[in-house]
Amino acid sequence: MQLTANHEHMPPGHETRPALGFSSDNIAGASPEVIEAIAASNVGQAAPYGADEITARVERKFSELFEREVSVLLVPTGTAANALCLAAVTPPWGSVLCHPSSHVNNDECGAPEFFTGAAKLVPVDGPSAKIGIEALRAAARMKVGDVHSVQPSCVSITQATEVGSVYSVDEIAAIGDVCKSASLRLHMDGSRFANALVALGCTPAEMTWKAGVDALSFGATKNGVPAAEAIVLFDTALARELAFRRKRAGHLFSKMRFLSAQIDAYLRDDLWLRNARQANAMARRLMLGLQAFTCIEVQGEPQANILFCRLPSALIDALLAQGFTFYRDRWGPGVVRLVTSFATTSADVDHFLDSVRRAVGCNSQ
Amino acid sequence: MQLTANHEHMPPGHETRPALGFSSDNIAGASPEVIEAIAASNVGQAAPYGADEITARVERKFSELFEREVSVLLVPTGTAANALCLAAVTPPWGSVLCHPSSHVNNDECGAPEFFTGAAKLVPVDGPSAKIGIEALRAAARMKVGDVHSVQPSCVSITQATEVGSVYSVDEIAAIGDVCKSASLRLHMDGSRFANALVALGCTPAEMTWKAGVDALSFGATKNGVPAAEAIVLFDTALARELAFRRKRAGHLFSKMRFLSAQIDAYLRDDLWLRNARQANAMARRLMLGLQAFTCIEVQGEPQANILFCRLPSALIDALLAQGFTFYRDRWGPGVVRLVTSFATTSADVDHFLDSVRRAVGCNSQ
Amino acid sequence: MQLTANHEHMPPGHETRPALGFSSDNIAGASPEVIEAIAASNVGQAAPYGADEITARVERKFSELFEREVSVLLVPTGTAANALCLAAVTPPWGSVLCHPSSHVNNDECGAPEFFTGAAKLVPVDGPSAKIGIEALRAAARMKVGDVHSVQPSCVSITQATEVGSVYSVDEIAAIGDVCKSASLRLHMDGSRFANALVALGCTPAEMTWKAGVDALSFGATKNGVPAAEAIVLFDTALARELAFRRKRAGHLFSKMRFLSAQIDAYLRDDLWLRNARQANAMARRLMLGLQAFTCIEVQGEPQANILFCRLPSALIDALLAQGFTFYRDRWGPGVVRLVTSFATTSADVDHFLDSVRRAVGCNSQ
Amino acid sequence: MQLTANHEHMPPGHETRPALGFSSDNIAGASPEVIEAIAASNVGQAAPYGADEITARVERKFSELFEREVSVLLVPTGTAANALCLAAVTPPWGSVLCHPSSHVNNDECGAPEFFTGAAKLVPVDGPSAKIGIEALRAAARMKVGDVHSVQPSCVSITQATEVGSVYSVDEIAAIGDVCKSASLRLHMDGSRFANALVALGCTPAEMTWKAGVDALSFGATKNGVPAAEAIVLFDTALARELAFRRKRAGHLFSKMRFLSAQIDAYLRDDLWLRNARQANAMARRLMLGLQAFTCIEVQGEPQANILFCRLPSALIDALLAQGFTFYRDRWGPGVVRLVTSFATTSADVDHFLDSVRRAVGCNSQ
Repeated sequence: MQLTANHEHMPPGHETRPALGFSSDNIAGASPEVIEAIAASNVGQAAPYGADEITARVERKFSELFEREVSVLLVPTGTAANALCLAAVTPPWGSVLCHPSSHVNNDECGAPEFFTGAAKLVPVDGPSAKIGIEALRAAARMKVGDVHSVQPSCVSITQATEVGSVYSVDEIAAIGDVCKSASLRLHMDGSRFANALVALGCTPAEMTWKAGVDALSFGATKNGVPAAEAIVLFDTALARELAFRRKRAGHLFSKMRFLSAQIDAYLRDDLWLRNARQANAMARRLMLGLQAFTCIEVQGEPQANILFCRLPSALIDALLAQGFTFYRDRWGPGVVRLVTSFATTSADVDHFLDSVRRAVGCNSQ
Repeated sequence: MQLTANHEHMPPGHETRPALGFSSDNIAGASPEVIEAIAASNVGQAAPYGADEITARVERKFSELFEREVSVLLVPTGTAANALCLAAVTPPWGSVLCHPSSHVNNDECGAPEFFTGAAKLVPVDGPSAKIGIEALRAAARMKVGDVHSVQPSCVSITQATEVGSVYSVDEIAAIGDVCKSASLRLHMDGSRFANALVALGCTPAEMTWKAGVDALSFGATKNGVPAAEAIVLFDTALARELAFRRKRAGHLFSKMRFLSAQIDAYLRDDLWLRNARQANAMARRLMLGLQAFTCIEVQGEPQANILFCRLPSALIDALLAQGFTFYRDRWGPGVVRLVTSFATTSADVDHFLDSVRRAVGCNSQ
Repeated sequence: MQLTANHEHMPPGHETRPALGFSSDNIAGASPEVIEAIAASNVGQAAPYGADEITARVERKFSELFEREVSVLLVPTGTAANALCLAAVTPPWGSVLCHPSSHVNNDECGAPEFFTGAAKLVPVDGPSAKIGIEALRAAARMKVGDVHSVQPSCVSITQATEVGSVYSVDEIAAIGDVCKSASLRLHMDGSRFANALVALGCTPAEMTWKAGVDALSFGATKNGVPAAEAIVLFDTALARELAFRRKRAGHLFSKMRFLSAQIDAYLRDDLWLRNARQANAMARRLMLGLQAFTCIEVQGEPQANILFCRLPSALIDALLAQGFTFYRDRWGPGVVRLVTSFATTSADVDHFLDSVRRAVGCNSQ
Repeated sequence: MQLTANHEHMPPGHETRPALGFSSDNIAGASPEVIEAIAASNVGQAAPYGADEITARVERKFSELFEREVSVLLVPTGTAANALCLAAVTPPWGSVLCHPSSHVNNDECGAPEFFTGAAKLVPVDGPSAKIGIEALRAAARMKVGDVHSVQPSCVSITQATEVGSVYSVDEIAAIGDVCKSASLRLHMDGSRFANALVALGCTPAEMTWKAGVDALSFGATKNGVPAAEAIVLFDTALARELAFRRKRAGHLFSKMRFLSAQIDAYLRDDLWLRNARQANAMARRLMLGLQAFTCIEVQGEPQANILFCRLPSALIDALLAQGFTFYRDRWGPGVVRLVTSFATTSADVDHFLDSVRRAVGCNSQ
């Protein structure tokens, strides 16, 4: 068996040719350690549907990680994790209070509506893709008890947000307080959980249940695994219902060990934190490099692994022509979003900066 | 990177100690070639959500395999494949005609109902877990046009069935004819598609669209991959709708290459057929071995990889005590189901037979 | 205003020409008292959505009727009442245990599945369209806790049943006991509640909550009102949820007084019991009359208002040719179902018997 | 039978004491002609589930009314009519483009989401509760073909709107054109269809299918019937599907004649138009009367039967203290909504104006 032949000395993400993609962290592959763990789990027979040893180990790890008993259900995608969590805390006549630009609201083709049995997502605005606390207070009270209206049932926040901003622990706790006083449940879409965590420098417990989070979509795919996410329930009473919901959504794997092995490796030796630090550091490196150009306006300081900047149109065209990929103009004319990942290297960033430098009409300061 | 250290010369399924599990083919791992393909796909960046090259290649392979244009959507589980297919061909007020013992009816916790928007599964009985053609004709006409009743919309057959029997091509075509004349769609749950195909010795085209199948759940997981199944649509008009349904069910992978790589390897060099032949051959070897014992009644000849036999209770106890696993008494008192897989070896089977031989009170003829 | 001009001395059901319809009790009109109450409620303005005085009065009446606090929600159809009740006691991954020939299973086009969010109806057989207690005990335990299967969540019984049989109070209590010990909820489809009640001669309390019923569809439409049914909840904790479910199903009337007025009149001066007694008595009169004919086999003794008998084919043809309506051959060759209603008169029955007498080839004993 | 005893000379809405309610048109009763028709329909037996003669007549009337073949399904509530229409033109992964203040979006507790199988309502803003045409053009194109997003599937407009404004025929046609070019279906929530129609002075055909409307919720309840609305389908191909959807939502009446009789009377002798003209005229009379007061700011000219005005807080308190009912402060501080109905009389309006006149601190000009 020859798995490593053609890049034996060159793990993925460290190819000779620099990577040109900055469109999303989902274009990266997986950490070699994770692939290795998948292969290592492929030994002999194993009890199916999560009754295997690796799955049991993963569940224990999460309880240690979060410093308390938690229930864990693994699923292959973030959309599944989010929609299942929301279904567990929102009745069909309920509403999910979320930011208008949130992934659950925009990018899941109605998965939360589908899984909840047709609940409603109610946008609650705020700057930097974060729910505003005053707006939330108002929304939490809106038409409560009015039979003509869906009923506020839970709040869903994204950490880090879709634009790369990060809720502080205090901000989460403030939202948690609103939830508590209004009897709402709090869900965290942690698709980029690790990126946010290392940005804040706090513990997983502080960023979640200690601040009032009931259910967490613990992301891993964007940060170095092929396809695995963990639903982490701080309210363990939700686990029974979610086991049935997961199965009936087709998200219970028979050969679960291959899913669990991904998370097992992800959590081993702080791989998940190291990966997130790399991604965040590369966004910062990009920012510092781009700030040197007079023709480029860097918008804010990236807290996690997403950077926004305004570029001259000709420069954008030139970069895209060279094969770089990123989204343009979605967040305003000339505004470009650059996303780094665990696999982004200094060389990748420097190559991007060099290309900017060489482009016509743009000089460094 | 050292993926292969501890079984370098001993691929999974060929451990020193024989495998004791005969409970299901889902307790096996994956073929080494598939794991290798996953690792090999982990190179550099790739377009997400199925826009990568491996996914494109897989789609082309299926068109070749089925000798016609098909649409393909990959998902991680058989339940997802089945439920999505059924949703595409059954309106919420429709009914799915299926065998009472079918997986969609019994073992998916209502996934077909969930995905279809609350359609009804209507059992149509028949021997050997196969839908009876006369019963189907009656069910296809039942209350058609009656607004008080769900409307027959599709037929779902399992190939090979849940008890290991296999519909002949003629039997499928007869069902296809009923479907055509009653304007029903025909779905095939091909969780064990390969096992059935090699049993029949026909082509994939003959066993599906040439016999009237509109949508196929092409299974791979049970036959050697970690978690990957293909929805194969012979009616390609269903593909657009299914793309949205897959996403909103959380089954669209961002790092799709890791899913596609599994199927890519599975179809390469006839791995899927070789695996199925091994599984089927091992069931036959078990049968031949067990027929030698006077105290054991082998029930029928296994067409695929599932064998039923009646054993003395004491023998069952003795085997289970030695660590063998299999289901007992579900299909009658003393009846045992033995399932082999691609990973089952002759040594595994012989070890089982030896253990039977050594057990008290059972002599070979 | 001249509502009564053309039948001033001839209330509905007492026309000069005898009524020919015996197909169902839903072809009758409404009791004059109910129409009068609708008209009487049409005075001035009234608070909408059930905040009016008539609705409040109706709710009080039900508490008196059932000798305990109950919650009441009015809806216009039996299908709505049943589906809403079942939704309140069955999660999407749950199952409703019901008789294979029950209305919820056969005649509501999947309404229970729709309202529950795609739960499954699991048939539990038994003679006379009544659930068998042993079969129920087995079904109640089936695959409990198995994540691959929908979970038994409630039992739904029809009183009187779809074939006119009636559960005794003891039979209901036995089912209630199974429910209690298996943590299932018990729903009663009381589409013909009054017919069953007067047949048993017990109190409403004895036939429901005292025997373990949690939620009741209290029918009225079949027994003399235009379109009104009451959901009566003995577990009043279900009321809040059902208020939202009713609204989102489009079953909350703005001008609720017109719905409540129907039930108000129905319960006034025992109209509901008088109507049911008339219907039941007419079925008995039919039976006694038909027993006199040697060529007719009366099948059982009608407990409520439904009679089955086997007639010679030529007789059936002759009766239908004269304009009589009833279902034939659904329950066996030559088997005819005759349904009487509150509006059926002795003259109607005698006219039917006379017509039988005059028909060729059939002599009375 | 004495239906009319206590108000023989005083039909409903013409009581001695003036009506004090201006909160909504749903607090009125029904036109006497409609009650009379219900009573008149209560003769003898009738085929159930809409196979009766009155239902057939109603369907013919609608075809005449709209000058073309239409399909008609009667239901008891506007929420049911809207949600069923939307379900017929929106797949589960679709979106309904509607005004943020629309009834379907705010006041139906998620019925459209429930009936569509969890589609999404996407608000498209515009002044006077009317969808803005430019905003609609943008929304109609939004993320079309993007598998991560729900797909624009239909537009729902309310005529007259929730604030009493009326789309002109040209405005509807402009929306119809957008729909056509974007392959969207057009639904009209005509809860106050008659009020809008008489305001515009056009034909029903001009206000609907000639302007591009595919499906109409033809309201009647607010304008003089107890509980009846008609789904009118200009795309008659939708009728088959809706028949099943109606049944499975519990909205198919067994004794349909009582529902049909309401619409039958409503359409007879232009009752529906006369009622709407009365309601609209009374709103105008209110406006003219209130304009005379210097302390009252009448906001716009009512096109239909809803008037907004700003009153001093003390005046509002005084009026409410006298028993008048209306909503305050929902649409801004001091802003009051006054709704008239078919049953509002000149005496009712004048009594309200007199009460304003007598209130402290408010003088007429």
